[in-house]
Amino acid sequence: MLYDLTVVQFSKMLGNLSAILTRGEAFAQAKKIDVGVLLNSRLAADQFGLIRQVQIATDTAKLGVARLTGKVAEAPKHEDNETTLPQLLARIASVLEYLSGFTPEEFAQAETQKVSQPRWEGKYLTGREFAIEHAIPNFYFHVTTAYAILRHNGVELGKKDYLGTLPFKS
Amino acid sequence: MLYDLTVVQFSKMLGNLSAILTRGEAFAQAKKIDVGVLLNSRLAADQFGLIRQVQIATDTAKLGVARLTGKVAEAPKHEDNETTLPQLLARIASVLEYLSGFTPEEFAQAETQKVSQPRWEGKYLTGREFAIEHAIPNFYFHVTTAYAILRHNGVELGKKDYLGTLPFKS
Repeated sequence: MLYDLTVVQFSKMLGNLSAILTRGEAFAQAKKIDVGVLLNSRLAADQFGLIRQVQIATDTAKLGVARLTGKVAEAPKHEDNETTLPQLLARIASVLEYLSGFTPEEFAQAETQKVSQPRWEGKYLTGREFAIEHAIPNFYFHVTTAYAILRHNGVELGKKDYLGTLPFKS
Repeated sequence: MLYDLTVVQFSKMLGNLSAILTRGEAFAQAKKIDVGVLLNSRLAADQFGLIRQVQIATDTAKLGVARLTGKVAEAPKHEDNETTLPQLLARIASVLEYLSGFTPEEFAQAETQKVSQPRWEGKYLTGREFAIEHAIPNFYFHVTTAYAILRHNGVELGKKDYLGTLPFKS
């Protein structure tokens, strides 16, 4: 279950995020504005802008999976120096590539894995707690905020762009 | 797992949402503005305002759990006629009360439960697909958007207000 909730679903949402950002690019071209205006837009002066929201969303996916599987040391590094849309899309693609290398078997111990972060000063959560109460809500927070920044700037997006396609059966 | 992801975690987040809304009220009082200005605020002219975001967040939690457990008919009805903060807080409280009545045992068939909605025209998702790809991302979308509307209006909120307390161990 944790594999599906993180590797599979985070990958789907990051694909949706790429498409949403590309919609922002098309909007900027149609309006004859620099897409950088959107990338550096934010909802509040003291909240992170769009570039940082994408950086954190990808980090939450990447490090969430790395921590649940005890493989933080092997996770790809990102310098957080993206300034253009192609660079942001490349970052998302690199995290998608990284996530695609995981198998459900690598999550066998994920629920009981002790998960910590530098800022937690030695304290930890179980993998189950970390996934449910931290990684998942954080991931959706940053994807939604990225969507909201574009929406606020006039990009025509809807819930389907956020959720992506659903595997309906009849 | 689905019980923890929905009943337990949605309840936690709805509690956080209540606290976030109450922070909005304190902000409005300090600024000597009607809290209704915040409740009717939105991030884009064609996106739902704060009241509707809270209504949808609570509905997503209520109906998500009802659908996963096959108990839609028994779920409490809400008229979507809230216009004040106390009414919104009461709505959240009523959903928290409803969620508190569920047990993990009622989720025994949740993963394979066939879940549909009127707008899906007879098509369905399995409970597992519905939870992972629809209910959970939707729930966080609306909680985050409610947070973002207040943040955009100057209410001082941080990630901790969104995530709530974490069960750290040492």
